Amino acid sequence: MARTEISTLGEFGLIDHLTKNNEIRNSSTILTVGDDGAVIDHFGRQTVVSTDLLIEGIHFDLSYTPLKHLGYKSVVVNLSDIYAMNATPTQITVSIAFSNRFSLEALEEFYDGVYAACNLYNVDLVGGDTSSSNKGLIISVTAIGEVAPDKFVSRKGANNMDLICVSGDLGAAFLGLTLLEREKKIFAETGSQPDLENQAYIVGRLLKPEARKDVVAWLNENEIIPSAMIDVSDGLSSDLLHICKQSDKGCVLYEDKLPINDEAKEFAYKLQLDPTACILSGGEDYELLFTIPQTDFEKIKNNPDISVIGYITEKEEGSNIITRAGNKHKLVAQGWNHAKQN
Amino acid sequence: MARTEISTLGEFGLIDHLTKNNEIRNSSTILTVGDDGAVIDHFGRQTVVSTDLLIEGIHFDLSYTPLKHLGYKSVVVNLSDIYAMNATPTQITVSIAFSNRFSLEALEEFYDGVYAACNLYNVDLVGGDTSSSNKGLIISVTAIGEVAPDKFVSRKGANNMDLICVSGDLGAAFLGLTLLEREKKIFAETGSQPDLENQAYIVGRLLKPEARKDVVAWLNENEIIPSAMIDVSDGLSSDLLHICKQSDKGCVLYEDKLPINDEAKEFAYKLQLDPTACILSGGEDYELLFTIPQTDFEKIKNNPDISVIGYITEKEEGSNIITRAGNKHKLVAQGWNHAKQN
Repeated sequence: MARTEISTLGEFGLIDHLTKNNEIRNSSTILTVGDDGAVIDHFGRQTVVSTDLLIEGIHFDLSYTPLKHLGYKSVVVNLSDIYAMNATPTQITVSIAFSNRFSLEALEEFYDGVYAACNLYNVDLVGGDTSSSNKGLIISVTAIGEVAPDKFVSRKGANNMDLICVSGDLGAAFLGLTLLEREKKIFAETGSQPDLENQAYIVGRLLKPEARKDVVAWLNENEIIPSAMIDVSDGLSSDLLHICKQSDKGCVLYEDKLPINDEAKEFAYKLQLDPTACILSGGEDYELLFTIPQTDFEKIKNNPDISVIGYITEKEEGSNIITRAGNKHKLVAQGWNHAKQN
Repeated sequence: MARTEISTLGEFGLIDHLTKNNEIRNSSTILTVGDDGAVIDHFGRQTVVSTDLLIEGIHFDLSYTPLKHLGYKSVVVNLSDIYAMNATPTQITVSIAFSNRFSLEALEEFYDGVYAACNLYNVDLVGGDTSSSNKGLIISVTAIGEVAPDKFVSRKGANNMDLICVSGDLGAAFLGLTLLEREKKIFAETGSQPDLENQAYIVGRLLKPEARKDVVAWLNENEIIPSAMIDVSDGLSSDLLHICKQSDKGCVLYEDKLPINDEAKEFAYKLQLDPTACILSGGEDYELLFTIPQTDFEKIKNNPDISVIGYITEKEEGSNIITRAGNKHKLVAQGWNHAKQN
């Protein structure tokens, strides 16, 4: 494969090259890449902003992550935050820093993924920054969205007795990560080619997640306004506890209501992992976790893509999970802290 | 000095701690730190967005950069981009990734600088991301501003015969960098304490730059709307060539009109550097470079803080500088490419 050194273009040549096919999809995008700032017109709407920093060796491993997928995912995880506010993403900025081990072709692959996400989610790339790095790849994405005045949904509004709902299924991204890490280790030790055991579902959930644009659209169509919403990025426990903390409430979850994909569950058993632990602490599922008043139950109960997994309580009752055996356990946030200790 | 390990707080405890004194200054800030996104109301205004990625060892050297100054500068360089659009910055997001060599006290110092800049420039910190890094400190700042519809000034609008103007003086930040790098090298080789030779001006220009909020305000008060504007971050040549390229024009600069501080000029001679080269290629001055029609000359000529340094030509005439001796040289962009080659 051709390898073009980035130094042959320089920073500005590189930006021109990587953005030459950049399309504008939103009429609110007035000025885009190539100036000190982008200009966005949000006449009579509210602007929602979210940002993420992704670092090689911390957030992703290039030994099993194709660059195109990484570009796609870097955008999608930010858009997921905008949808979790009940807003519509409209623009993104993408900054990258890379060491000289990256060729122009490698950056093009990354941007192919960025543009694929822009295309699918109808957002405009309007700016960013490029830089060299002394080690590895660093990505920073900021997403901007819009919402009708005061129609945004924060983490704060959950009320006592509200139903706790989640879209899709949980835990699969973590199982995909576990599989890829296992195969990486085996390859390093023995040179054996990775055996992904036809686990396309769990690997896909990790490497190419989608943001739940469709769920937000469905909620709007059905005139359901969640009282609180968050996307599941750190793991169900951690993210639900954010809603509880910011709403000053407690919760009850039911283990037997937690949604998991069948293949993912089987694979968890094979690895001797508890599927419930994968769901609670796994993270990176990018599903939407939200609370609704009980009066909306009739509207939601026949949607097979949304599970009612528990309810909100007063704060004094704490945050608990009822196991299949009927035992009550305190819900504990793992995720980032957990990762740090390992 | 006390050292608190960040792992004792966890990510969310850390965010709570670092943002507990975060004040909201703009009524457009509707929802701030602590949710999936921030919410900003820009009723009837246009939103301007700019972002920068700053990496230890590439953009800053902690051996001579106090963390508080670094926090301040990280914000200011982004605000400078917003002012360079003739807009008013209103919100920022700040993301940081840090290795375990950073203590909580170190991050507090960094955020003290961030908040000092927010306070002086009247902007709200509305979000961000924190992460661990496997090496050094990584900072990503996104600034958001607002401007009345279509009053933004891009790099594209320069017209033939427009005057080229720049605020303040140029080249000093580069000389400050040169001095600090020299003293670092001497310290590494001999252990001698740094001798900054009372060069407070040039060191201050590097470590604690300001964005030219005052210049944008003055232009507005005097009803001067630049035809094109950019901030001087990469060096005068590089930044002026951006205006020329995007406006499809050429330019003539006069060496004897280029503004430099007296102390900076003397120090350049002492180091056997050409002051003009420092001005043209130095960068990091964060002054505003802009073009105005000749009819605005009367308004601007008595402002001692703005220098008229040349004029815009048709593209065919190229981009040139007339030296003190009356010779004509082609203007060449250095800066980032230049830095890469060394």
